[in-house]
Amino acid sequence: MAEQSQGNPQHKPQHKPISRFPVPELKDLPDDIREKILAVQEKAGFVPNVFLTLAHRPDEFRAFFLYHDALMLKETGSLSKADREMIVTATSAKNNCLYCVVAHGALLRIYAKNPLLADQVAVNHLKADITPRQRAMLDFAVKVCLDSGSVGDADYAALHSHGFDDEDIWDIASITAFFGMSNRIANSIAMRPNDEFYLMGRLPKK
Amino acid sequence: MAEQSQGNPQHKPQHKPISRFPVPELKDLPDDIREKILAVQEKAGFVPNVFLTLAHRPDEFRAFFLYHDALMLKETGSLSKADREMIVTATSAKNNCLYCVVAHGALLRIYAKNPLLADQVAVNHLKADITPRQRAMLDFAVKVCLDSGSVGDADYAALHSHGFDDEDIWDIASITAFFGMSNRIANSIAMRPNDEFYLMGRLPKK
Amino acid sequence: MAEQSQGNPQHKPQHKPISRFPVPELKDLPDDIREKILAVQEKAGFVPNVFLTLAHRPDEFRAFFLYHDALMLKETGSLSKADREMIVTATSAKNNCLYCVVAHGALLRIYAKNPLLADQVAVNHLKADITPRQRAMLDFAVKVCLDSGSVGDADYAALHSHGFDDEDIWDIASITAFFGMSNRIANSIAMRPNDEFYLMGRLPKK
Amino acid sequence: MAEQSQGNPQHKPQHKPISRFPVPELKDLPDDIREKILAVQEKAGFVPNVFLTLAHRPDEFRAFFLYHDALMLKETGSLSKADREMIVTATSAKNNCLYCVVAHGALLRIYAKNPLLADQVAVNHLKADITPRQRAMLDFAVKVCLDSGSVGDADYAALHSHGFDDEDIWDIASITAFFGMSNRIANSIAMRPNDEFYLMGRLPKK
Amino acid sequence: MAEQSQGNPQHKPQHKPISRFPVPELKDLPDDIREKILAVQEKAGFVPNVFLTLAHRPDEFRAFFLYHDALMLKETGSLSKADREMIVTATSAKNNCLYCVVAHGALLRIYAKNPLLADQVAVNHLKADITPRQRAMLDFAVKVCLDSGSVGDADYAALHSHGFDDEDIWDIASITAFFGMSNRIANSIAMRPNDEFYLMGRLPKK
Amino acid sequence: MAEQSQGNPQHKPQHKPISRFPVPELKDLPDDIREKILAVQEKAGFVPNVFLTLAHRPDEFRAFFLYHDALMLKETGSLSKADREMIVTATSAKNNCLYCVVAHGALLRIYAKNPLLADQVAVNHLKADITPRQRAMLDFAVKVCLDSGSVGDADYAALHSHGFDDEDIWDIASITAFFGMSNRIANSIAMRPNDEFYLMGRLPKK
Repeated sequence: MAEQSQGNPQHKPQHKPISRFPVPELKDLPDDIREKILAVQEKAGFVPNVFLTLAHRPDEFRAFFLYHDALMLKETGSLSKADREMIVTATSAKNNCLYCVVAHGALLRIYAKNPLLADQVAVNHLKADITPRQRAMLDFAVKVCLDSGSVGDADYAALHSHGFDDEDIWDIASITAFFGMSNRIANSIAMRPNDEFYLMGRLPKK
Repeated sequence: MAEQSQGNPQHKPQHKPISRFPVPELKDLPDDIREKILAVQEKAGFVPNVFLTLAHRPDEFRAFFLYHDALMLKETGSLSKADREMIVTATSAKNNCLYCVVAHGALLRIYAKNPLLADQVAVNHLKADITPRQRAMLDFAVKVCLDSGSVGDADYAALHSHGFDDEDIWDIASITAFFGMSNRIANSIAMRPNDEFYLMGRLPKK
Repeated sequence: MAEQSQGNPQHKPQHKPISRFPVPELKDLPDDIREKILAVQEKAGFVPNVFLTLAHRPDEFRAFFLYHDALMLKETGSLSKADREMIVTATSAKNNCLYCVVAHGALLRIYAKNPLLADQVAVNHLKADITPRQRAMLDFAVKVCLDSGSVGDADYAALHSHGFDDEDIWDIASITAFFGMSNRIANSIAMRPNDEFYLMGRLPKK
Repeated sequence: MAEQSQGNPQHKPQHKPISRFPVPELKDLPDDIREKILAVQEKAGFVPNVFLTLAHRPDEFRAFFLYHDALMLKETGSLSKADREMIVTATSAKNNCLYCVVAHGALLRIYAKNPLLADQVAVNHLKADITPRQRAMLDFAVKVCLDSGSVGDADYAALHSHGFDDEDIWDIASITAFFGMSNRIANSIAMRPNDEFYLMGRLPKK
Repeated sequence: MAEQSQGNPQHKPQHKPISRFPVPELKDLPDDIREKILAVQEKAGFVPNVFLTLAHRPDEFRAFFLYHDALMLKETGSLSKADREMIVTATSAKNNCLYCVVAHGALLRIYAKNPLLADQVAVNHLKADITPRQRAMLDFAVKVCLDSGSVGDADYAALHSHGFDDEDIWDIASITAFFGMSNRIANSIAMRPNDEFYLMGRLPKK
Repeated sequence: MAEQSQGNPQHKPQHKPISRFPVPELKDLPDDIREKILAVQEKAGFVPNVFLTLAHRPDEFRAFFLYHDALMLKETGSLSKADREMIVTATSAKNNCLYCVVAHGALLRIYAKNPLLADQVAVNHLKADITPRQRAMLDFAVKVCLDSGSVGDADYAALHSHGFDDEDIWDIASITAFFGMSNRIANSIAMRPNDEFYLMGRLPKK
């Protein structure tokens, strides 16, 4: 590992490995996967590494994003996009997943239009600038993340008292569960977050 | 909750809820989902409750089983079907997921043609009748399950020394991660395992 | 360790070691111990390995079963035999004791006349088909098992509210404590459960 | 609870309850139990509360002390009496059992003729004035206490390398297991250590 | 708590409480404390909240910063300023201390001239762009943070093998210990990090 | 490590190392530090090792005792000296710090004029002879010690209900935090408690 890049002056963009596994070239990918990747690149301005690293396994790539989109892009229910990213950020921090905290923290800042929220939620959601309803949502998500076997009636009741209905609870639990999977894969293959994510949503939009 | 069915004489089949959420009728489901369910019923003789409970959310159902099949039905790599079910059983026990321990324990007994293995692996894989290679596989799976943030070079080296290659490691990690998701969903919606699973694979086949 | 017996086709009864320690021959045992063993064999149809492995230490054998019988065969108090075996199964699972989960799970199925209960209680008693009273009993047993230093007035009050009196609480605590000892010994000497236990109580009696 | 006795000046001997349960009068006890209690009183100068509190259940009392004596008074094996009390003190501290830390800490001071050892072992055996052999013994005992399901070949090998044979290992494990039971009972019934124990072995014998 | 500031559009600077305790006015403070605060304001462009919140207790304020400066401004030893802030960031994350992760993460980015390092170290130092020497340093700091009772010879040896001498080890341990204190105070009084910290060191200096 | 001193007959005062680091001679110390040490020796009859071991770092010594005195010698607030030492003893036990449990346990016995209290609080404060108010104080201190990130409104309310005001809460939290630092330093440098502490406060004053 080259010393000059580590905690030293002259930080420069570097080409560090983004996975322990081979990362395919765009041209070698099946059409549907390449198209999905080009679309996200068009929209985001870069390709998040999760797309490139999971493309090593096309069938799993397809299932992963199908599931992801079903949970994160669905238009029903009372969870805002910021709520969903907040769940991902808080629980990914409990799982010590660098990729997901950095990437979804960026999305949280953007959707919430709040440059502070992601760091707060990642370090200690009990000290974050969130509503009591969001606090209850994150309390439940953290329980699903760390001790799902104990989920029971009292958890449903607590969420109902904050206006969440059962379908919202399914959403919170499933988002937590899906990203718990994503965290374990990312940690196991050493998926590296793109440098671009770290600064996203921290500056006022012009 | 009816008293007479609980730990008392005269245990009889009962119709206990299989989920906290509405369970759709087969006839109300999209064609592709109904067909998948009928196919599994044809093969297994009954419909495992995971199919019925997840059908409440058709898009998530499709993604879930697409992912499931990509990991569990793939024909490459050195993990046997019994190995995969062993990973599911061991890690689901760590997550206290009744559905997955019972259902995948049944599959483990069948694939391994061993009526004892599932209970052993669920209670303490260190005391199970498995090979040193399987022991290393489960040690890694349990680490991915409980502390994926600490996975590193030494884990890869340990698995390599037992003949697993990197693609096998991806498989072990992803199976663990996928069923960690499944465990959290099942626990959160109180998915109940079918009574049929408990006895499967325990009796010699005639 | 022979490969062919592990997770492979052609599972056959094998003579695996039942303890890390010498297992005495029946004929070499003191009379009282041999008689107790022959009596249990007469009743159960086989000799549970706990009798054979502990017979390596006759004085400890005598004390162990004297204590066991005082707690498990006593005819006073409100705990049914199924309740007692349920406590053993649930807490032995927390201690990852294969012998006790398998052997006492068998007894639980038999006493409760319920083929599903043992697996449920071993994996997650919060999802088991038990009464609220049994749930309170197991909640307390698990606390005694994992964090007895925190037992206090509130625990007694919770049990009283379900109709347990102080003597019942002594019973629950002592059964948990006794099998916590048994679990630690079994784990330390690698006591192997008899193959016979795995299937007991799973089939309807003819 | 009387305020003046708690952390205040004028500490005087008081008659605090020694158990949550009825404590029998000596005269009401079965002969064998009364005799055992009178014998210990003769020898120690007072009756340790464990005798009085457990006498509430004569059958369990008999089994408890039969087991206790089999492990703690046996004259074979390489564990000294101080070694055995050291195991009890260290593991009872992990279980937060006031009775056993105080009572067996007293015995440890006496048998080891060392007034400092019990407090050291109770707070952190890694910082205690013990031999490397005793350190290995306590490391194993703590593992049996906290995570017996993980005991395996490596633990046996480590102890062998310090000169312990398999029978010694059985002793260490069983002493740990037995007092793990004792700890859970004492914590659950709120067994109070006699005031006398606290000072025993702390002063030079005249 | 005002709803519009929480995870919603139109994030604007707000005057949220920075402590559960009264925050003194500069003019009401003892001269030495006011001067120290004015000096830091001069240098940093704002007053970090730790100065204002601790000024509620002048004697503790003086001791806190005397200790802080002795450890963080000392000019001997082989720990760079970035190393020290890295220790603070990593261990404060383990203690879920929002103030210290955010404030010292900012200093880490600045001293290391690396905009990514603080988030990496806070989420999972095992995945951070650091040298093996820094990895060993943080492994030790995390052990001191979470389980100092187990620190022993092997830890010293591991650090020596990376070129740390005993005085460096004292520094690592003391910095971890000091900020462990700071974390617990900040968490207990709900010390809020200044908004300014979140962006510091993330943009290239012009 | 010399065998004859360990758990053996003929315990005699020995000159065991009191730190892994060099311990300065009194004559080589800066005047202010030497004077502070001589003053404590005058008062206590011996020099507690924390003074000698920390004198290796004069600047840190000064800050440490300045902080210590600000918290432990302050004359405002409702915490008695015994209360403060009780906090130190209980939380140092959670951190497995031999030095602080032994030294501050001695002070607790003396200030509380109660020879039993320190051992009770160190092993299990829930079983100690303390008032409900002291129990609430220690419950909070233990939470600050082990999980300060979760401290919140409910903790403040619980303490208020026992008559503690906010300034008392600051005191409890800061004492816990300060000795949490002290525990980590003592554990890391292997600070050895003076033999004198073990017996202090255990005998009636003449």
